[in-house]
Amino acid sequence: MLAAATALALPAMAQQNHASDSATIKKLYNEALSSTESYENLRYLTKKIGARLSGSPQAAAAVEWSRQVMEEMNLDTVYLQEVMVPHWVRGDKEIGRVYNSKLMGTVDMNIAALGASVGTGKQGLSAEVVEVQNFEELEKLGKKKVKGKIVFFNRPFDNTHIHTMAAYSGAVDQRGGGPVAAAKLGAVGVLVRSMANEIQDVPHTGNTRYEEGVQQIPAAAISTRDAEQLSSLLKDDPNLKFYMRMTSETLPDVLSYNVIGELKGTEKPDEIIVVGGHLDSWDIGEGAHDDGTGCMQSIEVLRLFNELGIKPKRTVRAVLFMNEENGLRGGRKYAEIAKAKGEKHIAAIESDAGGFTPRGFGIDGTDAQYSKALTWKALLAPYGLHDLTRGGGGADIGPLKGQGTVALIGFRPDSQRYFDYHHTEIDTFEQVNRREMQLGAASMASLAYLISQYGL
Amino acid sequence: MLAAATALALPAMAQQNHASDSATIKKLYNEALSSTESYENLRYLTKKIGARLSGSPQAAAAVEWSRQVMEEMNLDTVYLQEVMVPHWVRGDKEIGRVYNSKLMGTVDMNIAALGASVGTGKQGLSAEVVEVQNFEELEKLGKKKVKGKIVFFNRPFDNTHIHTMAAYSGAVDQRGGGPVAAAKLGAVGVLVRSMANEIQDVPHTGNTRYEEGVQQIPAAAISTRDAEQLSSLLKDDPNLKFYMRMTSETLPDVLSYNVIGELKGTEKPDEIIVVGGHLDSWDIGEGAHDDGTGCMQSIEVLRLFNELGIKPKRTVRAVLFMNEENGLRGGRKYAEIAKAKGEKHIAAIESDAGGFTPRGFGIDGTDAQYSKALTWKALLAPYGLHDLTRGGGGADIGPLKGQGTVALIGFRPDSQRYFDYHHTEIDTFEQVNRREMQLGAASMASLAYLISQYGL
Repeated sequence: MLAAATALALPAMAQQNHASDSATIKKLYNEALSSTESYENLRYLTKKIGARLSGSPQAAAAVEWSRQVMEEMNLDTVYLQEVMVPHWVRGDKEIGRVYNSKLMGTVDMNIAALGASVGTGKQGLSAEVVEVQNFEELEKLGKKKVKGKIVFFNRPFDNTHIHTMAAYSGAVDQRGGGPVAAAKLGAVGVLVRSMANEIQDVPHTGNTRYEEGVQQIPAAAISTRDAEQLSSLLKDDPNLKFYMRMTSETLPDVLSYNVIGELKGTEKPDEIIVVGGHLDSWDIGEGAHDDGTGCMQSIEVLRLFNELGIKPKRTVRAVLFMNEENGLRGGRKYAEIAKAKGEKHIAAIESDAGGFTPRGFGIDGTDAQYSKALTWKALLAPYGLHDLTRGGGGADIGPLKGQGTVALIGFRPDSQRYFDYHHTEIDTFEQVNRREMQLGAASMASLAYLISQYGL
Repeated sequence: MLAAATALALPAMAQQNHASDSATIKKLYNEALSSTESYENLRYLTKKIGARLSGSPQAAAAVEWSRQVMEEMNLDTVYLQEVMVPHWVRGDKEIGRVYNSKLMGTVDMNIAALGASVGTGKQGLSAEVVEVQNFEELEKLGKKKVKGKIVFFNRPFDNTHIHTMAAYSGAVDQRGGGPVAAAKLGAVGVLVRSMANEIQDVPHTGNTRYEEGVQQIPAAAISTRDAEQLSSLLKDDPNLKFYMRMTSETLPDVLSYNVIGELKGTEKPDEIIVVGGHLDSWDIGEGAHDDGTGCMQSIEVLRLFNELGIKPKRTVRAVLFMNEENGLRGGRKYAEIAKAKGEKHIAAIESDAGGFTPRGFGIDGTDAQYSKALTWKALLAPYGLHDLTRGGGGADIGPLKGQGTVALIGFRPDSQRYFDYHHTEIDTFEQVNRREMQLGAASMASLAYLISQYGL
């Protein structure tokens, strides 16, 4: 009692106590690894609700369910934040088919419309294919060789990157920029090699972009195995025809929500630490690693604090952002409201790289913030959190940048398996290891705890 | 040319060249991540040969196939090392069944005979069950309460350990020592809760022991889910009967082999660095993580050296040990022959913890050896190899201990998923991620390269 009273009398000192922090972090890990609550929450989200693209009934279900989960947790506040989101629908299962005139045969190919893509019309479209590795090659081909054709972007991941995110970054320009670049040269459609390290049968969807004044042409991801095969068939018959049929379309925007719950700080309630993930997912698979785990981990951070009776000195807020995948409207709205309210965010930690074994955090902040985080290295290393690197953040928390000196922190799990599942029908609950996901939640809770104690 | 000649003229200096080593290590990783050869080798071993318990025809196939793989690799030497191994066979699929007299119903339970266990006879055996958490509880029960019964060891993994190997170490005494302890008190059979972190349906087999002069009673692993259920049923009806039927038996020893391939050192061929795993596996599943990956990674180390034209100064030898799982005869024989030949081993690196993302190495050696390894930390850290810890080694290389100053080094991959698959029918090729396995091979090759250049 005396010790507690003394501690309360000297809040301003914020003297770091390594032994006590170490014990608290151990408790956070023990509890995270002993309770199956976050894992069972993920099971519900993925199995009972499932895929939850912005604007879908399932996204609405995910909002209401996660609100109820947090309402039952004895938090200080739980609320929704209105946000209008795009409403794109995939329509019928896509058809992709090659007709090789030399063989007089057809080969079906696994394709998936890219998010935001227009459809082909119910009749589908059929055209010759030109294969390129990048935009420079496309430019060199010029209008004459591209007009009326389907442009096939087939640059693979560079497998020599140790971090698969680097391989993704080196290839994803094809998916985002392909349709506009191809349409400018008169192409009628686009196929993009799936964003994956492996040779697989499943296509990987993901968002693409159109530009005002440029024809909107249909664009689909093709599985890496079929991309290899299509490339091979094109060598045999450069004039083969590809048939694609997609009935995807964009409907009017829909009202949706960010879901927010928080524990108020006991000493500096105005200083806010966000832990978050995105509640929406693509419309295929179950959005387990992307980003069911990030959301369930964020809720788990608050549960761990409550369960262990940890009263954070600064406010810790879980934010389940809506519409990361195809619009980022939730992240933008959150930052807009934070600014309008004059809220003071000191840190935001996003988990949107899968529920894999934690390796560390990427920190986008000032030199002083980074140095302060490094003083915690010895506390985090026993849990395998060795990578405390400069640069980080995440898509949803990105719009907060520049509001005061908020540090944007990306939780960094092991990256090796992420693009096996990312944006596919096999991103399911079964691919998530309970312990790996729990360790992630404990990692986020540990860092949030240290920041709540000592600021950043 | 001049630079190379100079380097050759000054071999004794062994001046460490960080920049050059860093470049070589990068090349090792690039090649490992770009070639699918080791992964396809694993596919062959697991899918075309499959489970390969010592003494089985499949173990013989694995010996011949891996010998052929290495013969085709342009190594300096490939040879077999004779070793007599135990030949235990599981027999019929086991039956485990509870009869609850209160419910007048039966419940089937997933059990698997433990390696070395005797059978029950074809009629099976039926007895009441006493549940204990540890040997102390068993002792307290005494002969009166144990005689004629099946002892059910049900202490679970402690999930709060960050490294799952620690949880395994804390529970596996039940599997190894259960039958002798129970038999001494007159028990007629043993059930052991499977060695796993998760609640699952698959039983985890593994070796057990008998002692001369103590009755050999049948012992089986029971799946964690059924262990939970049995425990619950026992609370309802402490007098329930458990029926178990196993036709396992031990046949006469069989001739088998360690499979060895090596690249001779250019400067100190008498100084040997072993990279190894064990070629045998349990007889259920495919022995993918345990230890197909370790063997294929060991072969891959030699392939990487060859492919990149790296001529090691010291001899690098891949050893695929036979009979790690139920006898360790291969490891013992290898050490015995090494001693008899007067071979000088300076280091042995074993991969037998699964084909998961590398985290580091555990080093069992002198202070000087450990200090020297730490000087390479900056070279290994970019690849996530942060854990260079004291203590390590591995079962197969263990018998080398004390031969000169050989450092025994355990390759340490991420441990979270290992006991989901270990010794079960789901330890299959599909559970291995290509990149994770390749990163492991590159990690082993990098350390072997540094030791081959500079000694240890």
